[in-house]
Amino acid sequence: MTQPSERALVPFVSVDHMMQFIHLIGVEPMLRELADYIEADFRRWESFDKTPRVASHSEVGVIELMPTSDGEAYGFKYVNGHPKNTKEGLQTVTAFGLLADVATGYPTLLTEMTLLTAMRTAATSAMVAKYLAPKGADTMAMIGNGAQSEFQTLAMKAVCGLKTVRLYDIDPAATEKCARNLAGQGVNVVKCRTAEEAIEGAQIITTCTADKQYATILTDNMVGAGVHINAIGGDCPGKTELHRDILLRSDIFVEYPPQTRIEGEIQQLDPDHPVIEMWQVITGAAQGRTSDRQITLFDSVGFAIEDFSALRYVRDRIRGTGLYQELDMLADPDDPRDLFGMLLRSKTASAA
Amino acid sequence: MTQPSERALVPFVSVDHMMQFIHLIGVEPMLRELADYIEADFRRWESFDKTPRVASHSEVGVIELMPTSDGEAYGFKYVNGHPKNTKEGLQTVTAFGLLADVATGYPTLLTEMTLLTAMRTAATSAMVAKYLAPKGADTMAMIGNGAQSEFQTLAMKAVCGLKTVRLYDIDPAATEKCARNLAGQGVNVVKCRTAEEAIEGAQIITTCTADKQYATILTDNMVGAGVHINAIGGDCPGKTELHRDILLRSDIFVEYPPQTRIEGEIQQLDPDHPVIEMWQVITGAAQGRTSDRQITLFDSVGFAIEDFSALRYVRDRIRGTGLYQELDMLADPDDPRDLFGMLLRSKTASAA
Repeated sequence: MTQPSERALVPFVSVDHMMQFIHLIGVEPMLRELADYIEADFRRWESFDKTPRVASHSEVGVIELMPTSDGEAYGFKYVNGHPKNTKEGLQTVTAFGLLADVATGYPTLLTEMTLLTAMRTAATSAMVAKYLAPKGADTMAMIGNGAQSEFQTLAMKAVCGLKTVRLYDIDPAATEKCARNLAGQGVNVVKCRTAEEAIEGAQIITTCTADKQYATILTDNMVGAGVHINAIGGDCPGKTELHRDILLRSDIFVEYPPQTRIEGEIQQLDPDHPVIEMWQVITGAAQGRTSDRQITLFDSVGFAIEDFSALRYVRDRIRGTGLYQELDMLADPDDPRDLFGMLLRSKTASAA
Repeated sequence: MTQPSERALVPFVSVDHMMQFIHLIGVEPMLRELADYIEADFRRWESFDKTPRVASHSEVGVIELMPTSDGEAYGFKYVNGHPKNTKEGLQTVTAFGLLADVATGYPTLLTEMTLLTAMRTAATSAMVAKYLAPKGADTMAMIGNGAQSEFQTLAMKAVCGLKTVRLYDIDPAATEKCARNLAGQGVNVVKCRTAEEAIEGAQIITTCTADKQYATILTDNMVGAGVHINAIGGDCPGKTELHRDILLRSDIFVEYPPQTRIEGEIQQLDPDHPVIEMWQVITGAAQGRTSDRQITLFDSVGFAIEDFSALRYVRDRIRGTGLYQELDMLADPDDPRDLFGMLLRSKTASAA
């Protein structure tokens, strides 16, 4: 068989390779480095081609493509959301992503993104909390102890110096699972029996629950002055976690307003309710936290640029690790016009 | 290492496997079967979710995602178009595609689509010619002898009984290449020195040239009564092949009018110029060829549903051939909420 040329091969990072890659770098160092990549891309936010995500809805779920480009690289993520999957022993969300060279259109990386998305979501939360959480914040209430909770906790530790996490979930088994996974990771873990108990003494409140419905994980009287709320669970139409009154008392920071108004907590508010774009806080064009008593709310829905940052990171850091396979994905005849000749010769070659 | 479950594995068809697969089925049988799959999907055209393609343009090319769904399966194709690539020894167009299960969102097939697109484009042309070409048509002029030309010729042979192809290209080397590749394939090959010579006695005229600019491959006086024109080269804004006067004398058949009006030959005409949707000809809702003297024109630009048909075909026919590898692409923890636990255990497992 004729060997394909090097440019016809696309590095592919499997789930197994991604896990080995995370262990090679270390969970916390990788979360810190991802936060740096994401922060760098937020800083040059205006240089990105920000296409809205392309969604294909069915009665049981959604399949989305999230593309973006910085003019040099092009990336997209494939991601599904099927809440009923869990009952069938399947993942609610699976994802993979691709990076390509804008100059040639040739793909340069294909990778699993279920693990990578958990890492980038946590790194984004922590990067934002670094700007918005009150000074000296070292305690977080983690409400919702599902698949994202350990990643969120360790990112806050790695990037913001978190010392204590206070766990709460309506399902005590989820809290036990999270506490067990965090044992020996260098964070004090406090298991709580109510959401009220979890937020006692916490300067950061992270909500990450899974129901696709309007829910009220936090009520107004639970949220005191000065806290930073990291709301990552409200991420599709009809799914919110916070009581509307909390939003009205908060300064609200978002990734990309056109998407957040449809998918985030602010879908409960008027379409012209003021919000602050996070990239402007990072460049200094807008103010972040301005007082000790202010409630800051990061209404996070996850944006394509964060996936792009994560893809860039993997492409840069995976080199030389051997933690990928080369996929023969692109037809590459010697003469570009001779695709059929390549096909003909492959028959002769395999018969020989 | 813990083995991923079967559902976490996605079959991947490489370029090498695709070539072996084509040889296993046979080029002509596969073109016939593809034409049947495409015809079946045109017949149920209205049951598809027809999202417009999502394009990311740069100064040197375009990268596109072409998604569609029939409610049971979801498919998309990644395809680039970079005319200047040829000068750098790269392909102008490379492509890959993915099929997923709408019910779960899980991918079910990943495949190269550069070869597969050439096959589906040829199968579509032939399926359409079966409806529109004059009775007894057995001679085709093939103007433009690049990467698509052999596929187009063999599809017309396999589906419509073509006996003779008359080749012309502005570059005689392309014609030589095409004639060489078609030798022994059971078609009479006539090399011509002008386009005028190529169309002598041809009932079908296929134009497939590559320049991204308004070109006039056929002028009005070259096209006589009764022919079928299969115009596949005009497929992006600013790129056409036929003189406008030919269009005005023809009945024009298209895949999906909103896309063809932007990308096809009819971008030269008024936006309300009448066209006939090909799927309606197939269901009988519209008439195809109605007289011997009529000029029919298939203004082909390539639509997502044709890729979907091709993906469906590969998924159905590749089973049991062994001509794919299983990619560990989807994270699949035993407990869907325990993604971090899966990561932790992978460290212990690989250390053991």
